[in-house]
Amino acid sequence: MASKLTSEERTRALEPLLRTGRWVLVNDRDAINKTFTFTDFNQAFAFMTAVALKAEKMDHHPEWFNVYNKVEITLSTHDCQGLSIRDIDLAKFIDQTAASKAQ
Amino acid sequence: MASKLTSEERTRALEPLLRTGRWVLVNDRDAINKTFTFTDFNQAFAFMTAVALKAEKMDHHPEWFNVYNKVEITLSTHDCQGLSIRDIDLAKFIDQTAASKAQ
Repeated sequence: MASKLTSEERTRALEPLLRTGRWVLVNDRDAINKTFTFTDFNQAFAFMTAVALKAEKMDHHPEWFNVYNKVEITLSTHDCQGLSIRDIDLAKFIDQTAASKAQ
Repeated sequence: MASKLTSEERTRALEPLLRTGRWVLVNDRDAINKTFTFTDFNQAFAFMTAVALKAEKMDHHPEWFNVYNKVEITLSTHDCQGLSIRDIDLAKFIDQTAASKAQ
């Protein structure tokens, strides 16, 4: 079972995502959020499919909203009601995947 | 270019979706909304993929939110800033697709 990020993990692993990765903390819960914009729906859904396959493999799933070429993703861990290392890992994968797609 | 549903089309095509299809009108805009619940993420994303392929073929895309086994879909037509016959067609396809998946 995943546990909440420790203070040390927040400094080491979460802060870089916030500082340079354009992820933002969600206001009223321990979660992070980022919006990705692609050239069109085709690219956006190709990105979502790659993320979905990874999420299923990790058994750790995003909350996400899509309209046409935009995908807004929120990450948090249900088990611990907050951010865990699994969110950090999935966020990194998502960033890498987005970087490899046309945006 | 799509045009807004006429009064006659609302009676003939929209009302059945609202009456028996569990679609609901969105409060502050001319749009319809429905939430689908599947057994797990795998089934939910399989459903989304089928809808995505159809949407791309129609060049008419949903607004949708997914978390784990739930998919909330809003349909409206950007061109006419409201419901068009394309939303009715996509809603019907979505209902048929959902019915064919494990829920």
